[in-house]
Amino acid sequence: MIKRREFLAKAGTLTAAVGTGSLVSAPAVHASPKKFRFKMVTTWPPKFPVLQTGAEEFTKKVKIMSGGRLSIQVFAGGELVPPLGVFDAVSSGSIEMGHGAAYYWAGKVPEAQFFTSAPFGFTAQQLNAWMYYGGGLDLWREVYAPFNLVPLPACNTGVQMGGWFNKKIDSLADLKGLKMRIPGLGGKVISKAGVNVVLLPGGELYTALERGVIDALEWVGPYHDLKIGFYRAAKYYYYPGWHEPGSCLELVINKKAWDKLPKDLQQIVKSASAEANLMTLAELDAKNGSALNELVSKYKVNILKYPDDVIKKLHELSKETYEELSAGNPKIAKVYANFQKFARQIEPWTAMSTAAFMDAKKL
Amino acid sequence: MIKRREFLAKAGTLTAAVGTGSLVSAPAVHASPKKFRFKMVTTWPPKFPVLQTGAEEFTKKVKIMSGGRLSIQVFAGGELVPPLGVFDAVSSGSIEMGHGAAYYWAGKVPEAQFFTSAPFGFTAQQLNAWMYYGGGLDLWREVYAPFNLVPLPACNTGVQMGGWFNKKIDSLADLKGLKMRIPGLGGKVISKAGVNVVLLPGGELYTALERGVIDALEWVGPYHDLKIGFYRAAKYYYYPGWHEPGSCLELVINKKAWDKLPKDLQQIVKSASAEANLMTLAELDAKNGSALNELVSKYKVNILKYPDDVIKKLHELSKETYEELSAGNPKIAKVYANFQKFARQIEPWTAMSTAAFMDAKKL
Repeated sequence: MIKRREFLAKAGTLTAAVGTGSLVSAPAVHASPKKFRFKMVTTWPPKFPVLQTGAEEFTKKVKIMSGGRLSIQVFAGGELVPPLGVFDAVSSGSIEMGHGAAYYWAGKVPEAQFFTSAPFGFTAQQLNAWMYYGGGLDLWREVYAPFNLVPLPACNTGVQMGGWFNKKIDSLADLKGLKMRIPGLGGKVISKAGVNVVLLPGGELYTALERGVIDALEWVGPYHDLKIGFYRAAKYYYYPGWHEPGSCLELVINKKAWDKLPKDLQQIVKSASAEANLMTLAELDAKNGSALNELVSKYKVNILKYPDDVIKKLHELSKETYEELSAGNPKIAKVYANFQKFARQIEPWTAMSTAAFMDAKKL
Repeated sequence: MIKRREFLAKAGTLTAAVGTGSLVSAPAVHASPKKFRFKMVTTWPPKFPVLQTGAEEFTKKVKIMSGGRLSIQVFAGGELVPPLGVFDAVSSGSIEMGHGAAYYWAGKVPEAQFFTSAPFGFTAQQLNAWMYYGGGLDLWREVYAPFNLVPLPACNTGVQMGGWFNKKIDSLADLKGLKMRIPGLGGKVISKAGVNVVLLPGGELYTALERGVIDALEWVGPYHDLKIGFYRAAKYYYYPGWHEPGSCLELVINKKAWDKLPKDLQQIVKSASAEANLMTLAELDAKNGSALNELVSKYKVNILKYPDDVIKKLHELSKETYEELSAGNPKIAKVYANFQKFARQIEPWTAMSTAAFMDAKKL
């Protein structure tokens, strides 16, 4: 790093004329005297920690920063529109803002899944580099433009856990016929390894696991998983979460509503969503840390690592999945190509910085 | 992750009564009609990429968000006060804001070094968790309070590189007598391994390395290092950067100036600095990725990894350094204890999430 003394050569001295405080009483000339009242619908259950509460925190900061000129009323999933209805409600302009995840709209915009997370894809830190300085967000805007949606990264969960299992995974053979709840691209990949991917509502997961309706499931990470109490219904907790290495959740704004906002309020929304992107990961990391320690020390959870050959195979199957999806859809191919291009730019650097440092700590 | 269908049970339907756009023309009642003109002095050279430019970007966003009610004029190191003078200028209230690094003030506030970066300490992601959700920032505020300074994290460099060397490091023995420019705690640690730590102004580094006045130096990372052209003066480029695994740079605000700001402008400063914290790391990661690829493919730089026994020893010496500093200073002891406590909370989680995922990718 740079040493402060190095710049002394240039140093001037603090002149006596330097102002003190500079409070200038000026008339109230403000960029925008108009007040806006927006609604935000989310895909999350009421009070769902970090995700729903993070969306609410975002609106509080927007309100404070705008001096009350932009107030956003938040509705959790199902309170105003169904969780599945967020995309359409904001796209149509019925609602001004939405909070969810791009991979929830895989049926409508399959190429947008890469903006949330991809198996063996980017960590949160890498994804942010792609989004803000690698063309990712520009591409996302392009992808959402036909739907009148302006996307902004607004939350990141970090690496999710591999999941809760009642069958031990010693080799690839153990995946065959395993009944597992795992949605999205991760589910698509693991089904290629013979897993029987099951879709179940969140509220039914605990009972399904306890009663043997499913053998395994993945949810989020230690903090959310501890709250549900999966450790009481499962024998093993697996890591690492190969399927969602850093899920970016989205703020979407209806284009017309966005265009109506003056520049200052647009920047307030942008900065508050960037802040939320940073803060939610920090909050989850701190809470996952505590929860993991509790799962281990208090509940004696049996935490296991996926065998290397299983991970290797899932990595291969992930690439195979991306190739297949790209071959069948030029829009997916375009996003995947951009994603891969940035991966080639960032991966060697991550390997030499963060990954190498973490290895060094283990010695 | 959560599947959107899971919340369908709760789903209502989008009622026709839902408002459209809700643009309410109201009189311009704003929290604060006052205009503030602040000065910011930094420890960075003019136009220094990401650090100085990031500070400038921060002030631009503050100006836009505040509708011009808070405008901050930025002065690079030496333009108004010496780089070394930033702390005192803001502390005294002569200048309202400063941008630099807490470890530059080790002579005045040695315990603050932990808020920048510590050898074998936190990565950027871990540091953010400590800062915002682990009590780190609260402690930092407490530490700076006697100096009338309000600190905010405002930039992160990520893992810095190990440095440029003209002597090959095959074992601990090769460190003895090595003349290396490496400031701060890293310098303190490596001097215990026999390195002759040299202090030199930044502008003299290239020539000193080329002419053999020093055998080695560390600077920042591939992007900044490529710009200076160290690859032309050194035989080897070492990794990982054990000494600064994620340096957090600071925004400091004079307490009286801070207290004068209304709540909306305070929040704008807070959110903009959080955004800068996120964005600077994303920018550096993207640019370090490109620069590293260029150093390897175009300039054929010989990149080497520190031997394991060297890393292990430096890790031991880091702990020894912290213990010694703590024993001699209760204020350092307090910050180090908090730092260690959070390390115990976060390290097992990082090992099981980010580190394990990165290992999985290597298989």
